[in-house]
Amino acid sequence: MVQFVDVARMREWIETTGIETIVARLVDALETDFARWEEFSKCARIASHSPTGVIELMPVSDGQTYGFKYVNGHPLNPKAGLQTVTAFGVLADVSTGYPVLLSEMTLLTALRTAATSAFAARRLARPDASVMALVGTGSQSEFQALAFRRVLGIESLRIWDSDPGALDTFERNMRPLGFEIVRARNAADACAGADVVTSCTADKTNATVVTDAMIAPGMHLNAIGGDCPGKTELDPAILHRADIFVEYAEQTRIEGEIQQLPPDHPVTELWRVVRGEAPGRTSAEQITVFDSVGFAIEDFTALCVVRESLRGDSGVPELDMIAEPEDPKDLFALVSAGAAALTRAS
Amino acid sequence: MVQFVDVARMREWIETTGIETIVARLVDALETDFARWEEFSKCARIASHSPTGVIELMPVSDGQTYGFKYVNGHPLNPKAGLQTVTAFGVLADVSTGYPVLLSEMTLLTALRTAATSAFAARRLARPDASVMALVGTGSQSEFQALAFRRVLGIESLRIWDSDPGALDTFERNMRPLGFEIVRARNAADACAGADVVTSCTADKTNATVVTDAMIAPGMHLNAIGGDCPGKTELDPAILHRADIFVEYAEQTRIEGEIQQLPPDHPVTELWRVVRGEAPGRTSAEQITVFDSVGFAIEDFTALCVVRESLRGDSGVPELDMIAEPEDPKDLFALVSAGAAALTRAS
Repeated sequence: MVQFVDVARMREWIETTGIETIVARLVDALETDFARWEEFSKCARIASHSPTGVIELMPVSDGQTYGFKYVNGHPLNPKAGLQTVTAFGVLADVSTGYPVLLSEMTLLTALRTAATSAFAARRLARPDASVMALVGTGSQSEFQALAFRRVLGIESLRIWDSDPGALDTFERNMRPLGFEIVRARNAADACAGADVVTSCTADKTNATVVTDAMIAPGMHLNAIGGDCPGKTELDPAILHRADIFVEYAEQTRIEGEIQQLPPDHPVTELWRVVRGEAPGRTSAEQITVFDSVGFAIEDFTALCVVRESLRGDSGVPELDMIAEPEDPKDLFALVSAGAAALTRAS
Repeated sequence: MVQFVDVARMREWIETTGIETIVARLVDALETDFARWEEFSKCARIASHSPTGVIELMPVSDGQTYGFKYVNGHPLNPKAGLQTVTAFGVLADVSTGYPVLLSEMTLLTALRTAATSAFAARRLARPDASVMALVGTGSQSEFQALAFRRVLGIESLRIWDSDPGALDTFERNMRPLGFEIVRARNAADACAGADVVTSCTADKTNATVVTDAMIAPGMHLNAIGGDCPGKTELDPAILHRADIFVEYAEQTRIEGEIQQLPPDHPVTELWRVVRGEAPGRTSAEQITVFDSVGFAIEDFTALCVVRESLRGDSGVPELDMIAEPEDPKDLFALVSAGAAALTRAS
């Protein structure tokens, strides 16, 4: 039987545990997993593109546990009342190949993305960073704000979105939580005076949401929205004067902001910074970019945190997904009536 | 919500519809999908190997519907009372990226593999074929026998397995169904006089289960067990004097019997035979090999047949896997209590 975390159960876990507490747990778990990066067997995710979006599978294994996530990205979905991004994930036991957990991951992906952003920013943003610009205030934005408050102590936000409704929603959700929020007139206004710029827009185009002129020395760019071939947000001029950090270069060169750069442009994989093998931020003037596309290990980490939270809970629903004949070499026994039935009929 | 076909429901469908009826439906559906092969966006499956087995993801899309299967192969599993192969699959709507169906596929894979074998043999075996050797009588074998009876009218079987218990099980399951069964002394004895040789063993090694001397002119080899790097069953000498047919050459060159051959050894993709673009069997003396590894389109086809069978059935259980906020840009609304809770606590 496969443990099943449906949307209701995920919501209950998040609401009772608290978003910021879960973010903190995820950051701790990311710390552990990024430090053992080389133990994972990795590949770039497998994407199936269509005119309206993309469907991706993201598998990874640490030799003990295998995990994968199914995730889509369909920017036009909200016009039909649907989510741009939805996801579910599975953990399996490597030694037997049997799946052990199926979980909703639309909510969990929002949490893990925010946790990964904050996890990276702790090493890449200036230690005195106190103001974050949020360019794009869609479904991911509140999670980003809460993660940066928990991990970096940032409480002052400058927000911008081309959709005024998305700004209204963000303000309505976040003002009661004690953030200081400035509603900017445009993306440039949002970036002015920010220490961290989080760009998170959904259009599947090579957009220039953040231009070179908006970026000042010392800023850290948390670039989330450029995560697909043909989908970028940053002016390439920014990339040329910044130090660029990525999750898994092989995948980011296909999907990230650096798809705009030559394939040999130097980048640093974040796990090397975590292990102390490469420097993170080295000066207060440096511009750092976390060119984040989302990598399978982060989902693996998040699913393992969910699984850990279920330990000892006997009330977790289970799905009957695995056919289990009494004699494992006699699968036919499970459906033998289907052969006999036909023999009688014919 | 995602429709869910669990093991119990799959069993019920198979038992009430009949294995051979489902095989016939699958063969019709394979005919349609192989004839439109070029409409599918395809890739070799993504395998994660470990010392005890392999876990694979097999995605494919026809531009309207996306499907993938999760499947493992762990030859030592039966010693622990577990299945060698288990599987589940998902269909999704390409236009929105939303999953629509989750189904058990351990049983369904057995059916689709048998249907694909018979589908290929109808074009590659001699029209007068009446005797099949089954080398390896594990979980797949009964399904093969029923499919070949339904599609080719073969009722005479010569069986062999290194495990006498597996032979006992096969005989117990199949004798009541009207097959003429000869229990052979070894693999050579099983092949003697057979028109079709189905090899389906589980060991993850380069074995030579079927040697060159066992194979006579006019035979069709339905080679199922060689489906993984380092896992083959046929003496390569057979391959050198046979005409070889495959599902998707890119994947079969990695996983099939032809991994033993130079990468440019000529093979024919079966869909070209289906479309009349390449000949199947051309003479009674020819030796044909269907070097089958299992391809994603076959799983897609099978999942679509299952989905079709559910049409109009209002009793199909649904899983709450997709978080659906009222405002699609306000995912946070689903868990806002999780932010407020923490603010109060901190």
